[in-house]
Amino acid sequence: MSLATPYLLFLGDAPDMLAAKVALGVKQWRPENCVGQMKLDGCKADCGLKDMTISEGVAAGAKTLLIGVANRGGVIGPHWVAALKEALEAGLDLAAGLHNRLADVPELAETARRLGRTLHDVRVPAPGLPIGNGAKRSGKRLLPVGTDCSCGKMYTALALEEEMRARGRKATFRATGQTGILITGEGVPLDAVVADFISGAIETICPDNDDDHWDMVEGQGSLMHPSFAGVTMGLIHGAQPDALVICHEPTRTHMRGLPHYPIPSMQDVMEASLAAAKLTNPAAKFVGASINTHALSPEQAQAELARVEDMLGLPAVDPVRTGVSAIVDVLE
Amino acid sequence: MSLATPYLLFLGDAPDMLAAKVALGVKQWRPENCVGQMKLDGCKADCGLKDMTISEGVAAGAKTLLIGVANRGGVIGPHWVAALKEALEAGLDLAAGLHNRLADVPELAETARRLGRTLHDVRVPAPGLPIGNGAKRSGKRLLPVGTDCSCGKMYTALALEEEMRARGRKATFRATGQTGILITGEGVPLDAVVADFISGAIETICPDNDDDHWDMVEGQGSLMHPSFAGVTMGLIHGAQPDALVICHEPTRTHMRGLPHYPIPSMQDVMEASLAAAKLTNPAAKFVGASINTHALSPEQAQAELARVEDMLGLPAVDPVRTGVSAIVDVLE
Repeated sequence: MSLATPYLLFLGDAPDMLAAKVALGVKQWRPENCVGQMKLDGCKADCGLKDMTISEGVAAGAKTLLIGVANRGGVIGPHWVAALKEALEAGLDLAAGLHNRLADVPELAETARRLGRTLHDVRVPAPGLPIGNGAKRSGKRLLPVGTDCSCGKMYTALALEEEMRARGRKATFRATGQTGILITGEGVPLDAVVADFISGAIETICPDNDDDHWDMVEGQGSLMHPSFAGVTMGLIHGAQPDALVICHEPTRTHMRGLPHYPIPSMQDVMEASLAAAKLTNPAAKFVGASINTHALSPEQAQAELARVEDMLGLPAVDPVRTGVSAIVDVLE
Repeated sequence: MSLATPYLLFLGDAPDMLAAKVALGVKQWRPENCVGQMKLDGCKADCGLKDMTISEGVAAGAKTLLIGVANRGGVIGPHWVAALKEALEAGLDLAAGLHNRLADVPELAETARRLGRTLHDVRVPAPGLPIGNGAKRSGKRLLPVGTDCSCGKMYTALALEEEMRARGRKATFRATGQTGILITGEGVPLDAVVADFISGAIETICPDNDDDHWDMVEGQGSLMHPSFAGVTMGLIHGAQPDALVICHEPTRTHMRGLPHYPIPSMQDVMEASLAAAKLTNPAAKFVGASINTHALSPEQAQAELARVEDMLGLPAVDPVRTGVSAIVDVLE
């Protein structure tokens, strides 16, 4: 999956900033991919980009209208359709990661077909994925793994890419989820891939590369999450990581969606992840911890990072509070 | 997925017995589901059932014509279509596990729609699978796990079901692959399920049951197979097995399809599988080893089983040579 850039970010009638978090992510991590933002009446979100009409976006070079807003239920708002159709007619592709598909809106499907535009529903994997083969690839790869879902793995990988590039190193974030795909314009929606192709899908997105190039592969799920560990296992095998980062949210008390499952220890997740990683890369090792301290005070966060460093003997960072330099130092 | 029984077994123009192995499996494990077999000109296979025309099969009570033959490429033979259409017109559903789908043959799709018959393509999962929740279920479950793919896991689970039933115990084989589904008439084709639903799919096929009932869940892949370990991981979590059986083929030198990956040791696979199983069932334990000694002489087989028993401290059986009584003794 590969989206044409740059984007005009569609904020729709987002009732607040949270509803536009995909657009905010694109603006934060790929500002060079954004020519502007487009709002409908009532929009309360703002990405800090220039407000544009569709024709202004096209004039500024936009190739794709990216739906950066999720309304309740994650569906395509019926009042969006006129604007989306106008974008197709003005020459733009459309991209979205919503539950219902652009291609299932008859008016959009028909217009896109007639004009030769592409509708990118990034929750839908491209056809033709291979079965994984576990063959050793050139280049280096890093994979964040978590004690739970949604504890900062995407953010960690994006921050590592940014820090590496700031130091003049070669690094590429590899998206494995819909938000990551929309942010970077390519990747594979791993949780929607057919089970036989999990590791093969990952092999395709982080192929052979320069010896000094690092793929920062977006993590998914947790080996200790009873709902999703299969996804995580295939991801670890396909990524064949040289380096792993343990991601953790210290205030969480149970696995996401499963009140009857407590959060496992970082050490248990590290042990299981390292054992799995060594199957396809015997040199795999942990290089740091990424702690999501969002819910802690500055003093609590500092104490937690110090505690984790002491416990694991690895640098512990919060990508937001401290940046990820300490981990990149290890990679260098 | 649930097929109407009993079956008329369609052997087509199978050039040899191997081509009809699905039909032979149904006859071996579910003879009560078979009213007879149907051959086309040139068929060289035989299941030892009464040869019937379609109308004779219907008269004998058949509800489904089961395609028990795979030709080269696993496709639906064009010269089969007339017979399959005749079966639909005579009142039968069709079931197949081939690479191309019955529903994609226009003549069959149209006939089935017109007459209200069902075309079961058992490689295609039913829609609406849930995400796994890891909640503890009543009843007991056994899962064979392997050092590799295709080393006897389905056969082991079927043999355990048979032995349990022969002793008057409650046991049900739970199919997770296309051959198992065709043999028993229900199950889920796990390798074709979307990644997010692997463990949830398994939870649906071995639900709450009597405390003294054993589900014998068909194993898939191997936690140490770089192509398919994600499937196996979700299967282990979804099955929440009380008992595990390690399956191994002692003459194999590398993982199926991956000449650069040697076969792991039974102990390594057992350690990894037990760690995974304990997430959803802390009481999980290994109860035996199932060794596929097909390629060994009787003396070699006996020595190998003795060696494995000594090494693991568990009963070692070959379902074909020795039966699985020694493992069922442990369950009792």
